[in-house]
Amino acid sequence: MSTTPSKTLETFANPRPGRPYEIHFDCPEFTCLCPLTGQPDFAVIHIVYVPAERCVELKSLKLYLWSYRNEGAFHEAVTNQILDDLVAATAPQSMTVTAEFLVRGGITTRVVASHPTE
Amino acid sequence: MSTTPSKTLETFANPRPGRPYEIHFDCPEFTCLCPLTGQPDFAVIHIVYVPAERCVELKSLKLYLWSYRNEGAFHEAVTNQILDDLVAATAPQSMTVTAEFLVRGGITTRVVASHPTE
Amino acid sequence: MSTTPSKTLETFANPRPGRPYEIHFDCPEFTCLCPLTGQPDFAVIHIVYVPAERCVELKSLKLYLWSYRNEGAFHEAVTNQILDDLVAATAPQSMTVTAEFLVRGGITTRVVASHPTE
Amino acid sequence: MSTTPSKTLETFANPRPGRPYEIHFDCPEFTCLCPLTGQPDFAVIHIVYVPAERCVELKSLKLYLWSYRNEGAFHEAVTNQILDDLVAATAPQSMTVTAEFLVRGGITTRVVASHPTE
Amino acid sequence: MSTTPSKTLETFANPRPGRPYEIHFDCPEFTCLCPLTGQPDFAVIHIVYVPAERCVELKSLKLYLWSYRNEGAFHEAVTNQILDDLVAATAPQSMTVTAEFLVRGGITTRVVASHPTE
Amino acid sequence: MSTTPSKTLETFANPRPGRPYEIHFDCPEFTCLCPLTGQPDFAVIHIVYVPAERCVELKSLKLYLWSYRNEGAFHEAVTNQILDDLVAATAPQSMTVTAEFLVRGGITTRVVASHPTE
Amino acid sequence: MSTTPSKTLETFANPRPGRPYEIHFDCPEFTCLCPLTGQPDFAVIHIVYVPAERCVELKSLKLYLWSYRNEGAFHEAVTNQILDDLVAATAPQSMTVTAEFLVRGGITTRVVASHPTE
Amino acid sequence: MSTTPSKTLETFANPRPGRPYEIHFDCPEFTCLCPLTGQPDFAVIHIVYVPAERCVELKSLKLYLWSYRNEGAFHEAVTNQILDDLVAATAPQSMTVTAEFLVRGGITTRVVASHPTE
Amino acid sequence: MSTTPSKTLETFANPRPGRPYEIHFDCPEFTCLCPLTGQPDFAVIHIVYVPAERCVELKSLKLYLWSYRNEGAFHEAVTNQILDDLVAATAPQSMTVTAEFLVRGGITTRVVASHPTE
Amino acid sequence: MSTTPSKTLETFANPRPGRPYEIHFDCPEFTCLCPLTGQPDFAVIHIVYVPAERCVELKSLKLYLWSYRNEGAFHEAVTNQILDDLVAATAPQSMTVTAEFLVRGGITTRVVASHPTE
Repeated sequence: MSTTPSKTLETFANPRPGRPYEIHFDCPEFTCLCPLTGQPDFAVIHIVYVPAERCVELKSLKLYLWSYRNEGAFHEAVTNQILDDLVAATAPQSMTVTAEFLVRGGITTRVVASHPTE
Repeated sequence: MSTTPSKTLETFANPRPGRPYEIHFDCPEFTCLCPLTGQPDFAVIHIVYVPAERCVELKSLKLYLWSYRNEGAFHEAVTNQILDDLVAATAPQSMTVTAEFLVRGGITTRVVASHPTE
Repeated sequence: MSTTPSKTLETFANPRPGRPYEIHFDCPEFTCLCPLTGQPDFAVIHIVYVPAERCVELKSLKLYLWSYRNEGAFHEAVTNQILDDLVAATAPQSMTVTAEFLVRGGITTRVVASHPTE
Repeated sequence: MSTTPSKTLETFANPRPGRPYEIHFDCPEFTCLCPLTGQPDFAVIHIVYVPAERCVELKSLKLYLWSYRNEGAFHEAVTNQILDDLVAATAPQSMTVTAEFLVRGGITTRVVASHPTE
Repeated sequence: MSTTPSKTLETFANPRPGRPYEIHFDCPEFTCLCPLTGQPDFAVIHIVYVPAERCVELKSLKLYLWSYRNEGAFHEAVTNQILDDLVAATAPQSMTVTAEFLVRGGITTRVVASHPTE
Repeated sequence: MSTTPSKTLETFANPRPGRPYEIHFDCPEFTCLCPLTGQPDFAVIHIVYVPAERCVELKSLKLYLWSYRNEGAFHEAVTNQILDDLVAATAPQSMTVTAEFLVRGGITTRVVASHPTE
Repeated sequence: MSTTPSKTLETFANPRPGRPYEIHFDCPEFTCLCPLTGQPDFAVIHIVYVPAERCVELKSLKLYLWSYRNEGAFHEAVTNQILDDLVAATAPQSMTVTAEFLVRGGITTRVVASHPTE
Repeated sequence: MSTTPSKTLETFANPRPGRPYEIHFDCPEFTCLCPLTGQPDFAVIHIVYVPAERCVELKSLKLYLWSYRNEGAFHEAVTNQILDDLVAATAPQSMTVTAEFLVRGGITTRVVASHPTE
Repeated sequence: MSTTPSKTLETFANPRPGRPYEIHFDCPEFTCLCPLTGQPDFAVIHIVYVPAERCVELKSLKLYLWSYRNEGAFHEAVTNQILDDLVAATAPQSMTVTAEFLVRGGITTRVVASHPTE
Repeated sequence: MSTTPSKTLETFANPRPGRPYEIHFDCPEFTCLCPLTGQPDFAVIHIVYVPAERCVELKSLKLYLWSYRNEGAFHEAVTNQILDDLVAATAPQSMTVTAEFLVRGGITTRVVASHPTE
C-alpha cells in the first residue's frame, strides 16, 4: 500500500456482513486550504458507519484525508465530498461524516452530513 | 465585502442542495445593550440549520452579530430576531438559534428558538 | 420595582407569542430552611419553560427565590411550590423546575417537576 | 428516628400526589462485603423514582443503605434487592436503582434495575 | 477457578430472572496483536447486557479478555467475536459490545456491535 | 452543643500537637447580606490551617458560618473577620481563609487572607 | 455612583490595612476594538492585588472596564494600561493584570503584567 | 498472606535503595466510624513516600486500611495514626498521608500529615 | 503585509519597554512533515516571552508557523528552530517554546526549549 | 530498524546540544506481567529528560516498552529499570520516569524515579 496521499480508498470484506454494527473513526489531523485566501484550515473529522459488504481500511483512510492537505475546500462542500467518496467506496448501510473546523472570525463551524438521508 | 457591522446577511448557493445536512455555528463573541439600563450584555450564540437553496456566509454572519453591539435588545426578543433574520436570508429547511447570556442578578438565561415550530 | 424579597412574580408580554420557544434559567443562589431542624439548605434551581402570553421578569424571579430564605421548606414540596407559582404567574405552554439540593447525610437530592404532566 | 443501621424504610405522604414528578438521590457512601471472599466492596447508588402516595424519608434511606455494611451481597442481587425494598416501602409509579461498583479485577461493574419493567 | 487466560466464560444463574435489568462492564485492560504487523493494540471494552437465565462471572470475564493478549485480531472482527462468545455463553435478552482502540495512524477507532440486531 | 447559629467557635485538643500538619475545610454553604443593598451574597469558604494546641470543631464551624446569614458583610471585611475569629479561637501555627463570592456585576471576587502574614 | 462607562476608578478604605491579603477579580465581559481594523476584540480580565490603603470598588471596576468598549486597544498596550490605571487609583502593595484574548488568526493571546516588577 | 483485616503492615526490601524515588498510592476505599455517633465516615487516602530500606506491600496496605472499617476514628487523629503506622513499618526517608473525607454538615475535610516535619 | 507563508517575523515596538511582562501565544494550527516518511505531523505550539525592545506581530507569527507546512522537521529540531527564529527577531528578555505533537506509535511527544538557559 | 520488541534503545545526536531543553513522552500502552501471579498489569509511562549528546529515538522507545509485555515486573523495580536503561542509552543531563499503574486491590500505584537524584 502506498504511503503518499491518495484519493483511492482501500476496502476489505466486512468480517460480519450479516450483523449491522457501527464503526467510528475520530481523525484530529485534517487540514485543507481556504479556497478564497489560500490559507490553511484545520478540522477534526468524525466518521460513523454501518458497513454492508465492504469496510474502509484504516491506513487508506489516513492517506485519503491527507490528500486534502494542498487542496482548496469550502467547509460545507468538503464534508459532503468526504461522505460521497466514502459511500462510493464502501456502499454502507448508513454513514455520517462530521467535520469540526477550528475557529475563523470568532466562529466555530461544524458540518454534519449523512447517507442515506432520513 | 464590507468589514463594518451590517444587518445584511450574505448567502451562497448550497453546494449539495439534494441532501439534508446540518451546519452548526458557535459564536462566543456576541454583545448587545440592556434596553432598560443601557449596560452591556454578553452571550454565546449557537446556530444549527439544515440549508435549502442558500447557505449563510461566515464573515457576513460575523458582521451581522456585530451589528447588535450598540443596540438595546431583550434576551427573549433578540434571540427570536436573529432567528427571523437568518430564516429570511436563507429560507432553510429548519433552523435553531440558542443564546446563552452571562449571569445577571445571580441568574443565567438561555433562550432557544426554532423554525419551523414542531 | 422592589428590591426586597417578594412572592409576587412580575411578568411581561411574550415578544413572540406565535412561536413556541424555550427559556432556561439557572439559579445557583437558592437557600431555605429545613422545617425539622431550622438549619439552612442550599440548592441550585433550574427552570425551563415555553411561554404563552406572558414571560417571567428576571429581577422579579430573583426576588421571588429570595423570599424562601427564611422559610421552612421540604425538598419535594418547595420544588412543586415554585412550579405552581411560576405556572400561576405566566400560564406557560409547558414548564419544568429542577431543584438540586446540596448533600445531606451523605446523599444528594434532586427533584424535577413539570407542568403539564405528560 | 433511630441512628443505627436499619432495614426499615420510613416514608412520608407525597406532598403533591396528583402530579407525577421525579425524585433523584445520589448516594456515594455505600459499602457491603463480597460473599465469596468477605472483603469490602464499594459502590455509588443512584435512585430515581416517581412517587405515588408515599415518599422515602432521606435519613431513613441513609440508615437503610448503612444496613448493608456488614452483609455479603453480590452486585447483581443487591441492586435488585434495594429496588425491591424501596418499591415495597413506597409503591412508586416507577423507580430505577443504579449501582456503580468500584473496579475489581480491572473491571468496573454497573447494574441498572427498574420497576415496573417496560 | 483458573487464574490463567481462558476462552471459557463461566456463568451463574441470574438472581432475578423475571425482571429485565442491565449489567454494564467497563474493561480498560484489553490488549491484542495486529494481525498484519504483529505489534500490540490496546482497547477499552464496554459491555452492556440484559441477562436472561445466566449472568457472566466477573473473574471469568477477566480471564477471557486476557486470552486475546497474544492473538492477532482485527478491530472489526474481534469486537464481533467477543459479542458472539458472550452471547453463546449467556444467551442474553440483549447485549452490546463496544471496543475503543487507541490511536493508530492518527485515527481512533471504535466498534459497536449488538445482539440481537434491531 | 447548640444547633442554632453562633459566633462561638468550639475547639478540641490537637491530637498530635508535636507534628505540624494541615487541616483543610471546603464550605460551599456560606451566605451573607450586602451591606449596601441588603440583598443576599453567596460564597464558598476554604480554610487551611496548621493547628497548635487546639483544633476547630466541625459542627461548631458550621454554626459559626451560619451566623453570617442575616448579617451585612463586605467581601474584603468578612474574609478577614472569619480569619480573625478562627485565629482567636485556635491560635494556630498558620491559617489561610479564602472566600470565593459568586458573580456580581459580571465580576467574580475571591479574597485570600493569611495569618501570620509572611 | 454613575451607571455609565467611566475611566474613574472609585476606591474605599482597606478594612484591614495592617495585613497583606489578596483580592482576585475575574471579569469575563471585556471587549474593545482592534485599532487596525476597527473590529471587536473580546477578553477575560483577571486582576490580583494586595491592597495598601485603598481597595477598588467593584461597580466602579465594572464601569471602568466598560469604558474600553468603543476604544481601539492593542493587546499588549491595553493590559499595561489597565494595570497602570488600577495602580494609580489604589497604590497597592502589588498587583497583576492578566488579559486572555479570544482566538484571532488561529492564535490565542494572553498578556500578564505586574506592579512592581520583581 | 492473610485476607482478613489486619493492623500488620508487610514490607519488602526496596529494590533500589541507593536512589531516592517516590511511590504514590491512591486508596478510594477507606471507611471508618464516627467516634461520637457511630455512623460511617468515608475517605480517599493518598500516600506518597520515598522508601529507605523497606517498601510497603500493596495487598498488606489494603488489609491495613480495611482494619479501620469497624473502628471509631476522628479525622485528624486517624490521618496521623496511618502516617505513624506506615512510618513505623517502613522507616521511609519521607512520607505524606492525605485523607479526603466526604462532606459532613455541608463541609468537606482534608487532613495532610508528613514525616519528618520540614 | 503578506498573506503567504513566510520565514520573516514582523515585530513592533514594545509599548511598555520599562516593565518586564509576559506575552503568551497558544497556536493549535501547526503542521509539518516527517523528514523520514514525508507524512504530516501535527502539533500545538505554546510561546511565552518577556519582550525587551520588540514584540512579535500576531499575523506575522501565523504566517511564520504556516511556513513549516511543507517542510520536513524533526520534533526536537523544529522546536529549537522556532525558538531561535523568534529570539533572533525579537531579542526578548526570556522566551519558552513548547511543542505538543500528536500521538505517533502510541506515544505523545512534547518538547520545551527556553532562552536564555537558566 | 526492527519492528519486534527489543531491549536495545536507538539514539540520535541531539540537534541542539548546547541548550538544555526538555523532551516529554507520554506512553499509555505499557503492559507487563505480575511476577507473583503471572497476570497482566497495565501502566501509563511518562518520561521527561534533558538530553546531553544523544536523544532517544521514538520508534525504538516503542519497541523497548513493548519488550516488557511478557516479562514479570514489580511496580517499583520496573520503573527504576526503565530509568536505568534510558540513562544508560542516552546519558542525559537529567531524566524522570513516572509509571502510573491501573488499580489493583482498590489501590492505584504511581512510581516516580529521577536521575540524577537531587
